[in-house]
Order: sequence, then structure tokens, then C-alpha cells
Amino acid sequence: MASPTCSPDTLAAMFGANTTNATAAAAFICDHFNTVSTKFTDTTYAVDTTYLLFSAYLVFSMQLGFAMLCAGSVRAKNTMNIMLTNVLDAAAGGLFYYLFGFAFAFGTPSNGFIGKHNFALQSIPSSVFDYSYFLYQWAFAIAAAGITSGSIAERTQFVAYLIYSAFLTGFVYPVVSHWFWSVDGWASATNLDNLFLGSGVIDFAGSGVVHMVGGVAGLYGALIEGPRIGRFDHSGRSIALRGHSASLVVLGTFLLWFGWYGFNPGSFTKILSPYESGHYYGQWSAVGRTAVTTTLAGCTAALTTLFGKRIMSGHWNVTDVCNGLLGGFAAITAGCSVVDPWAAVICGFVAACVLTGCNKLAEKLKYDDPLEAAQLHGGCGAWGIIFTALFAKEKYVNEVYPGKAGRPYGLFMGGGGKLLAAHVIQIVVIFGFVSATMGPLFLILNKLKLLRISAEDETAGMDMTRHGGFAYVYHDDDDQKSGIPMRKIEPAASN
Amino acid sequence: MASPTCSPDTLAAMFGANTTNATAAAAFICDHFNTVSTKFTDTTYAVDTTYLLFSAYLVFSMQLGFAMLCAGSVRAKNTMNIMLTNVLDAAAGGLFYYLFGFAFAFGTPSNGFIGKHNFALQSIPSSVFDYSYFLYQWAFAIAAAGITSGSIAERTQFVAYLIYSAFLTGFVYPVVSHWFWSVDGWASATNLDNLFLGSGVIDFAGSGVVHMVGGVAGLYGALIEGPRIGRFDHSGRSIALRGHSASLVVLGTFLLWFGWYGFNPGSFTKILSPYESGHYYGQWSAVGRTAVTTTLAGCTAALTTLFGKRIMSGHWNVTDVCNGLLGGFAAITAGCSVVDPWAAVICGFVAACVLTGCNKLAEKLKYDDPLEAAQLHGGCGAWGIIFTALFAKEKYVNEVYPGKAGRPYGLFMGGGGKLLAAHVIQIVVIFGFVSATMGPLFLILNKLKLLRISAEDETAGMDMTRHGGFAYVYHDDDDQKSGIPMRKIEPAASN
Amino acid sequence: MASPTCSPDTLAAMFGANTTNATAAAAFICDHFNTVSTKFTDTTYAVDTTYLLFSAYLVFSMQLGFAMLCAGSVRAKNTMNIMLTNVLDAAAGGLFYYLFGFAFAFGTPSNGFIGKHNFALQSIPSSVFDYSYFLYQWAFAIAAAGITSGSIAERTQFVAYLIYSAFLTGFVYPVVSHWFWSVDGWASATNLDNLFLGSGVIDFAGSGVVHMVGGVAGLYGALIEGPRIGRFDHSGRSIALRGHSASLVVLGTFLLWFGWYGFNPGSFTKILSPYESGHYYGQWSAVGRTAVTTTLAGCTAALTTLFGKRIMSGHWNVTDVCNGLLGGFAAITAGCSVVDPWAAVICGFVAACVLTGCNKLAEKLKYDDPLEAAQLHGGCGAWGIIFTALFAKEKYVNEVYPGKAGRPYGLFMGGGGKLLAAHVIQIVVIFGFVSATMGPLFLILNKLKLLRISAEDETAGMDMTRHGGFAYVYHDDDDQKSGIPMRKIEPAASN
Repeated sequence: MASPTCSPDTLAAMFGANTTNATAAAAFICDHFNTVSTKFTDTTYAVDTTYLLFSAYLVFSMQLGFAMLCAGSVRAKNTMNIMLTNVLDAAAGGLFYYLFGFAFAFGTPSNGFIGKHNFALQSIPSSVFDYSYFLYQWAFAIAAAGITSGSIAERTQFVAYLIYSAFLTGFVYPVVSHWFWSVDGWASATNLDNLFLGSGVIDFAGSGVVHMVGGVAGLYGALIEGPRIGRFDHSGRSIALRGHSASLVVLGTFLLWFGWYGFNPGSFTKILSPYESGHYYGQWSAVGRTAVTTTLAGCTAALTTLFGKRIMSGHWNVTDVCNGLLGGFAAITAGCSVVDPWAAVICGFVAACVLTGCNKLAEKLKYDDPLEAAQLHGGCGAWGIIFTALFAKEKYVNEVYPGKAGRPYGLFMGGGGKLLAAHVIQIVVIFGFVSATMGPLFLILNKLKLLRISAEDETAGMDMTRHGGFAYVYHDDDDQKSGIPMRKIEPAASN
Repeated sequence: MASPTCSPDTLAAMFGANTTNATAAAAFICDHFNTVSTKFTDTTYAVDTTYLLFSAYLVFSMQLGFAMLCAGSVRAKNTMNIMLTNVLDAAAGGLFYYLFGFAFAFGTPSNGFIGKHNFALQSIPSSVFDYSYFLYQWAFAIAAAGITSGSIAERTQFVAYLIYSAFLTGFVYPVVSHWFWSVDGWASATNLDNLFLGSGVIDFAGSGVVHMVGGVAGLYGALIEGPRIGRFDHSGRSIALRGHSASLVVLGTFLLWFGWYGFNPGSFTKILSPYESGHYYGQWSAVGRTAVTTTLAGCTAALTTLFGKRIMSGHWNVTDVCNGLLGGFAAITAGCSVVDPWAAVICGFVAACVLTGCNKLAEKLKYDDPLEAAQLHGGCGAWGIIFTALFAKEKYVNEVYPGKAGRPYGLFMGGGGKLLAAHVIQIVVIFGFVSATMGPLFLILNKLKLLRISAEDETAGMDMTRHGGFAYVYHDDDDQKSGIPMRKIEPAASN
Repeated sequence: MASPTCSPDTLAAMFGANTTNATAAAAFICDHFNTVSTKFTDTTYAVDTTYLLFSAYLVFSMQLGFAMLCAGSVRAKNTMNIMLTNVLDAAAGGLFYYLFGFAFAFGTPSNGFIGKHNFALQSIPSSVFDYSYFLYQWAFAIAAAGITSGSIAERTQFVAYLIYSAFLTGFVYPVVSHWFWSVDGWASATNLDNLFLGSGVIDFAGSGVVHMVGGVAGLYGALIEGPRIGRFDHSGRSIALRGHSASLVVLGTFLLWFGWYGFNPGSFTKILSPYESGHYYGQWSAVGRTAVTTTLAGCTAALTTLFGKRIMSGHWNVTDVCNGLLGGFAAITAGCSVVDPWAAVICGFVAACVLTGCNKLAEKLKYDDPLEAAQLHGGCGAWGIIFTALFAKEKYVNEVYPGKAGRPYGLFMGGGGKLLAAHVIQIVVIFGFVSATMGPLFLILNKLKLLRISAEDETAGMDMTRHGGFAYVYHDDDDQKSGIPMRKIEPAASN
């Protein structure tokens, strides 16, 4: 079937000498076809941008989800602190990602390791990137920092938070995303001329790039800071420090679920791309399938956790179910676009087991992570990377990453071990790079006494000592009840 | 006006023998037109899928709305319980609807009563269904179970919840939706060859299929369990058991409002369908009108409730206004696409009266429904079915349900009584079928002592006895205050 | 390049006499092109409506944001009151805007001062307006009333609220929006035949039309009512009356941020408009750029506030950061579509300073505005109007407001002072008109003793005295604790 562009010379020759004005007729017709063709181009830009922008808005809503999940999971006395960090992830991330994060991540041509164009959105829009693409990637960048803030909650100085957050959003995360997502990243599945191990890494929406990065960063922070006071008693027994509001936990979890429909299906960034033109099956189907695999992985992980915890602990635990659900999402994120729905069920089941295992291990090792962020995003994220290398389906891999015949796919689907090899290396590399960057940063902050708050502040709660007061005042006499005369330290009360 | 497909033979004959290569010229031109035609097909799939997916995400956000509304409407001691049921509606619903619910509902060809294809998404995508359609319908299915959970809140065993929820989402709701929505359902308005009473039932977004089903199921659950302890005193007087957070009630209500824009306008499932091609008026207008009728019905019901309650009780009640609003939405859901905005105002006004009446009746009958779910979704849902049969406009009916000239429409609009007859039968049939399935289920659970929790558990609250602790810890000493040493029963506290 | 419409006569002449049936061939080809053309028209309507409707839903979600922000910012005892006002803004606004608000605002042709067509959606849809446009504008109208409710929170009679809200949504706001946004408004930038000062006012999404109107209305309300009891002690010192929940404040702020992506980029109302057909750059890029400028202004304002407050008060304040963020959004709203991202950073920085300054001034003047609404929406809104007149870029102005060559643009961008003159007049006119309408209204309500509640009610809290009880019951004994036997005044407790 012909392309809609039209060669007037060819057509004029067909009309031939007997046609009164063959050249004019051919030009007339081809002009019309060319107009039609440009109108399709316009339409495609408008449809794809609409799709991408609303997906970006959904991903942004995950920041609210994180804020509520984190708030609900910490004790009331640190609520303002953790929420402020979540607001600032978005705000500081906006400026840093605008100034250089996006350039590091996607500023091609690059040397394969770090981008170097498009600082402060220079030369954008271009035929490659439009503003909507920047917005979408910004929403991803702030998610990584949001993950980390959970691990180090309730005991970290605010200034340390500002420093690591800027470093993570502005440098560490952009570099990793360049490697795996930019068209000339050394391990990108779209770097067709130079596919790493002949395969490249298929980390579609970032089980590794986002979740493992955030989780491993959190791991170092939490390890270096040590557990919260009271988290393990002198005999070493684990004492749960319950979050202050299960309602906020559920609110945050559902918002993250909602936003994940921007995160995973949105990662196609385009929806108007036929696989076979004129047929019902196209990228719009792959987008829908991605939404379905995402849903099923989360659902299965939630149910697995529900019954697993019931057996182990004797009760039905809502916050554990929420975490299980999110673990399923973190795991499916890498392979969501290239696996079948039935495989997503397996992904979710194993993710719940991985999370439970990681939590058991964390308890054994006296590792304290108030949000289970390292376990959930790091552990389930790593599982998701392996899962993709096992279950990626040939047909889907070639549709989602077109242009290279015969590329490797999932080991269990008959696609050989090359994808698995690439993915194991991805895990090692991400772990190594984040260790080599965030580890020293947290160590230095610790040395400079900038990392952990004082024991008195920790006991009193940071809201009271650093953020101007307790987050809640339910009764007029609550101010007194808290034992600290709040109004006196209220800033607006001065003058 | 010609279709964009192109017959080269016809065109070649018109060019005739004097044209140098008439066949080639005609083929050239027609090839181009055919390419254009397939590109329109692709574009239409992409636009419609974008519309459907984001609508599905909105409907999904209603699950968060239900969770927050339910949480705020129960006492604090049962917050975790009710929120867990809402999370599980979505999660278990995801698996069951994937495995067989969708197949029962839409697996055509069927016998008119239950579908039997597409189990576990087999043969999907097809020219009829894509993944996005499944996702949209799943979001509807879990809404029905969410409604029911409200009726039986604060006194139901968790295992009973799991059983009825699976049965409702996996069987009862899919069967009903097959009858009224599948193209070969016996009462479907789209079953053109065999329209029930020559009309079929116009339940566009499910006042009956979703709301009445959920509401009637809840009615049986709540009737069989009986009222909560303390809901009626020994002299039989009604004692309000206030929900613990009006903020959560308002949050949930607004989220449901937000999500209803996916529920009602989204039920078109497509937006790129002209009614008269090239004209400004098309399905996009009908979609917008549906959003407007939905809005106006809810607004009117809220205002009616505000002033009604002010007169009856002497104060301005926010939770009653929220319920009135939702009653207006539940009512307009059936007819939202086929009535004029002014009719939606009438719909909302009557819905508020119906809800108030049902609540009065419930109090008289000592029926206890913590969320007023049976009254709201059952009562207002039934009114919405009748309303549609009275006010459906001929023009809109023929646009939204095309392909059958002269079909009946609203009685008050001059369309005769056939639609009303069909709708009365719909109410009877839904009531009967849900009674015949959910009634016995709740009775059996009751017999097996699996339905209601013990009086001690009810007094203590289920969160403490079944879910590992109280949902809120606002002060460090709250654990003590609650009278039960919470840390001791905390699972993570074990070694 | 030719338009896709097709003249068969022209083409037939080109084919000429030797072609067997030149007329038929030409008609055949042109018919096909015309069909293609109408299909593009359909597609454009569907894409633009999808874009507009989902933008409208986002703007609607801001109402939830306002509700949560307001609730969190007041004391617990007035939570139900403020939330009810927010629900009613949306509900009453729906009816009033349907009945006459939309007609006043957009019912062209008009006399330039007030619209007079389309009451109750008569003659809609038309080639100019579809239902989706009404829905979008309704969501804007209710935002204005929501702003005002914050200023007069915690001390206003509910009936006064109902009256001013209806007047504002039904008359004051529609008239102002007519002036600046309707195609024949006297100061509209799209009134091409009669541009005010040869320029018109560029208030793209309403820093003036929405935010200043809401803020100035609130200013009069709060001024006439005076400060809340206890807000300033007898020596005149400012005493902060802390809101009861920082979690709700953050929740509301993030929801407003989320919704602002509907408010600002959505104000294009169309996305499928090429600037150069067939090129990657079109209105979709401008839409994306608007989302980016909005984001950067908010982010910068939040960071500026964070460090500014840290220096001034010694702690990191989350609610101040939230207000700073919103101030940045309110400011960028006027110029979001016509400035570069770097300019948005400047806009946000200054907005934070303006807000801080206004708050200092308010404290000096003993002006009490619980939400800082007049300062934030009035002050930052006014700055945004000035900012646009300074930084609007020629290229963008001509793309977003096409059809008038050589129109003025930003003073600092070399566009002369005419736009600035028009914008200064906009500020004066809005201030004047709102003063002349809302000022007398509040004065009359005050005279009639309908404005402020009694001192006893204020001390006890309006929830208890007017709305049937306290918003929260966290413990079964809370009812007693509050000192008022709540069950007795509970309406449902009656028989």
C-alpha cells in the first residue's frame, strides 16, 4: 500500500500526453494528498501529546500518593517533616531537573554515559522532544527521590534531606536513566546500532531505573543512620513503631495505584502508532495490555500478602496488604509492556514473597526502614528486572522495541539467556552506581553531623522542634496536652 | 458523499482509453485513498482508546472514593476493617473478573443469559474488545462490591466479606451486566435483532446494573445481620452512630464525583463517532452533555437535601448533603446520555426526596445501613431507571442507540409506555435475581456462623481484634489510652 | 499547499476532453477528498473535546483541593462548616451557572459588558460552544467562590455564605469573565476588531478573572467581619490560630497542583491546532510549555518561601511552603501560555516575595484571613497580571492570540508599554468592580445581622452549634470529652 505522500511526476506520466493538462492535474491531486498527510502529522502530535500530558499528570499524582503514604506510616510527631520532604521533592526536583537533570538524562548525542544538551530546556521543542516529554520525565525523577525519603524517615536532618534529594534528582537518577532509556545510552534497548549484549536492557517503566535507584539510595541512608530509637529493644527484639494513620496509608496507596496508570502505560509516550495499519491491533492495544498487566500484578501481590500475613500473624493487615500491592506494581514496572496478563499474575505472586522475605531479612539484620522502601522498591524492583528477562514475549518485544529483527526475549519464552544476562548486569550496575554515589554522600553527611537528628529531637518529634508545631490540633486543649506551649514558638506570633 | 475507500476499476473507466495508463493512474490514486482510510482507522482506535483508558482510570478512582467515604462513615474502631474490604474489592475483583467475570458478562455469542467466551482474556484483543474495554468493565465490577460493603459495615466477619465479594464480582454482577449491556443480552438495548418488548432497557451507565445490584445485595446482608449494637435503644429509638471523620466523608464524596465523570460519560466507550460527519455535533457532544446532566442531577440533589434537612432537623448537615449528592448521581446514571439538562434537574430533585423517604422508612423498620447504601444505590438507582423511561428524548435515544428506527423512548416525551414497561421489568428482575443469589448466600453464611462477628468484637472494634490495632495513633500515649496494650499484639513485634 | 477541499470543475478542466469522463473522474476524486476533509473535522472535534473534558475534570478536582486545604487550615471545630461551603460552591454553582452564569459570561453577541444568550444552555451545542465548554467554565466559576470562602472562614453565618456565593458565581464572576474572555468582551484579547488600547488584556487562565476576583471578594468579607476572636490579643499582638491538620493542608495543596494542569494548559480548550502544519511544533507544544511554566513558577515560589521562612522564623514550615507554592501558581496563571520557562522562574520568585509581603502587611493591619486567600489570590494574582505585561514573548502572543499582526507584548521583551497599560487598568477595574458589588453585599448582610456568627457560637465552633456535631470522633468517649452531649442534638436520634 502506498504512502500518503504523492509524486506528481509519476502521476502525470500515467495521465500522459492526451490529458489536457496532466502536470496540473497531477499536482492538484498530489497537493491534496500532501495536505492530508500533514494533517495526519498534526493529528498524531495532538493525540500523542494529549496522551502523554495526562499520563504525566497521573504520574505527578503519585507524589501526592507518596506524601500521604509516608505521612500515614510515620508517627504523628514527624508528619509535617515527611510531608515537607515530599512537597520539596516535587519543587526542588522541578528546578534541578529543568536546569540540568533532563539534559544529563536525555541530552543526545551523548557519549553513552551522560547526556550533555538541552540544559534549561534549550532547543526544546525539537523534532525529538517536546515540553510534554520533559514534564513526563520530571514526574518520574521526583518519584525516585520520594522513594528514598521513606527509608530515612523520622530521624534525618532536614538539610541532609535537601542535599541528597538535589543530588539524586539532579545527577544520580538522570545518569541511570540515560544509560537505560536514552536512545544512545550504553545499555538502552533502543540503541539499535549498538545493543548491549546484542539485546539491551528492557526496563520499560523503570523497576530498575526508578525503583531500585530510589530503594538502594534509601538502603544506604537507613543503614548509615541506623534504626530509630526504640525500633529494637535492648534484647534486640523488633518493636513495631506504628504509623499514625491507616487512613492516610490507604489513601496514599490508592493514589499510587491511580498514578501507576500514568507510570506504566504512559511510558509508551505515544499511543497513535499502528502495528499493522488499518487493523484493530496497535500501540493502543499494547497500552491497554500494559494497564492490565499492571493491575493484575498488583492485585495478585495484594491477595498473596493478605493470606500470607494471615497465616503468619493471625490477622488481616491492611497496611501490609497495601505494601504488598505496591511491591507488585514495582515489580511489573520493568516488563509491563512485554508480558502477557497471565505472566503478570506470576510476577505479582513472587513479588509478594520477595517483599515478605526482604522484610524478614531486614528484621534479622536490625535494618529499620519506616516505609519498607528499600525492601519494596529495591527488592521487588530487582525481581521485576529478572522477571522481565524470563517472561518477555517475542511478539511484544518486537512491537514495543521495533527495528531490530531477532533480538533476544524472555528465557522461559524460548528467547535465550542474553536478555537475562543483560538484566543481571543492570541490577549489578545500578546497585554499584548508587552505592558509589549515594553511599559516600550519606557517609560524608554523617561525618559532618548533618545526617541524623539528636536523640532529644527524635524523641520529641521533628515537627515540634524543627517545623513549628504538631501537625494536628483536634481539640482546643491539644496545645497544652502536647506538653509544649506551641503558641509561643509559632512564628506568626512574633511581632 | 463517497466513502474514503476507492474503487480503481471505476476510476480507470472514467479516465478511459486515451489516458496513457488509466489503470495505473487509478490504482495510484486509490492506493493513496486507501492509505488515508486505514490511517483514519488507526487514528480512531487511538483516540477512542485514550478516551476509554482515562475514563477507566477515573472510574478506578471511585474505589478510593468509596474507601474514604466508608472509612469516614464508620466509627474509628472499624476503619482498618472497612478500608481493607475496599482494597480487596479492587484486588480480588481484578483476579476474578480477569478469570471469569468478564467472560460471563461479555463473552459473546451467548445464550442471552450468560457469556461463555474470553475467560482469562483469551482471544482478546479482537475486533470487538480490546484490553482497555476489559479494564473499564473491571473498574465497574469492583464498584458494585464496594457499594455492598457499606451496608454491612462494622459487624461482618472478614471471611464472609471475602466470600460474598468474590461471588458478587465474579458471578452476580457479570450476569446482570450481560443481560442489559452485552450485545446479545436478552434485555439489552443494543440487541437490535431481538429487542425486549421492542425496546430493550436503556440503563446507560448502570443505575440498575451497578447501583441497584450493589444496593440490593447490601440490603440482604444488612437485613440478615441486623443492626449494629446500640443503633436502636431498647425502646426502639434510633441512635445515630456517627462516623468518625467528616473530612474523610467529604474527601470520598468529591472523589466519587470526580470518578463519576469516567463512569457516566465514559460509558460511551468511544468519542470519535460523528452523528452527521463534518458537523460540530457528534458523539463528543453527547459525551459532554452526559457530563453536564450528571453534574446537574448531583448538584440539584445536594441542594434539595441541604434545605430539606435544614427544615427537618434545624441544622446544615454536610454528610447528608454528601449522600444526597451521591443519590442524585446514582439516579442519573441510567439516563444520563439520553435526557436533556433540564430533565437532569428534575431527576436530582426527586432523587433527594427518594433518599430521604428511604431513610425514614429504614429508620421505621429498624434497618441499619451505616452508609445508607441500600437506600442510596438501591432506592435512587431504581428511581433513575423509572426516570429514564419517562424523560428519554427521541433524538438522543436514536443517536446513542442507533440502527433501529422508531424505537420507544420516554413516556413524558411522547415515546409511549414500552420503555417504561421494560424498565419496570428491569427493576423486578434485578431485585429478584439478586434476592435469589445474594439472599441465600448471606443466609448460609449466617447459618454457618460466618457472617456476624461476636458482640465482644463488635464493641471492642474489629481493628483491634482482627486487624492488628487501632487505625490512628495521634499521641505517643494513645496506645495506652485505648486500654489494650497494642504493641503486644503487633505481629512485627514478634521475633 | 492546497486545502483538502477539492474543486471538481478545476480538476475536470485539467483532465480535458480526451478523458473519457472527465467530470465523473473529477467528481469521484473530489468526493473522496471531501470525505477525508469532513473526517478530519470529526477527528478534530473528538480530540479537542477529549482534551477539554479531561481538563475540566482536573479543574473540578481543585474543588476537592480547596475543600481539603480549607478544612486543614481551620480549627477542628469549624471543619464541617468550611467543607460544606466547598461542597455547596460546586453544587449551587452548578445550578446558577447553568441557569444564567454561563449566559452572562459567554452569551454572545453582547454589548461588551454582559452576555445575554444561552440561558439554561439554550442553543447549545452550537458551532461555537459545546457542552464540554460549559462544563469547563463551570469548574472555573466555582473556583472563584472557593477562594473567597477561605477568607471568611470560622466566623461567617451559613446563610450569608449561601447568598454571597450565589451572587459571586451567578453574577460578579461571569461579568468579569465576559469582559476579559468572551470574544466580544470590551477588554478581551480575542476581540480583534476592537482591541482595548490596541492590545486587549492577556489574562490567559485568570490570575485576574478568577484569582483576583475571589481574593478581593474575600478581602471585603474579612475586612467587614473583622478578625476571629483571639486572633490578635488585647495588646494587638498577632496570635496564630493554627489549622487542625497539616495532612489535609498538604493533601489539598497537591490536589490543587494536580488540578492546575487542567486550569492553565486546559485554558487553550483545543489542542489539535497546528502553528505550521506538518511540523512538530503546534498548539500541543504550547500546551506542554504552559504545563512547564506553571510547574516552574510553583516550584520556585515554594523553594523561595522555604528558605525565606527559614531565615525569618528559624524553622522549616510546611504550610507556608504550600501557600508559597499556590501563590506561584496564582501568579503564573495569567501569563502561563505566553512566557518562556525561565521567565516562569522569575514569576514564582517574586510571587513568594509578594505573598510574604502581603502577609506582613495583613498582620500590621490586623487583617485576619484564615487561608491567606486575599493575600495569595489577590496579591499574587495582581503580580501575575503585571508579570505577563512585562515578560510576554512576541512569538507566543501571536500564536496563542492569532489574527492580529503587530499586537503589543511584554515590556521587557521589547513589546512596548501598551500591554502593561491595559493590565494595570485590568487590576484597577477588577478591584473596582468587585469592591462595588461584593463590598455593599457584605455591608448589607452585616447590617442585617446575617454576616457574623455570635461570639458564643464562634467559641464553641460552628460544627457543634450549626452543623450537628463535631467532625471527628476518634474515641468512643470523645463525645463526652467535647463537653457537649452530642448524641442529644443529633437529628437522626429523634424518633
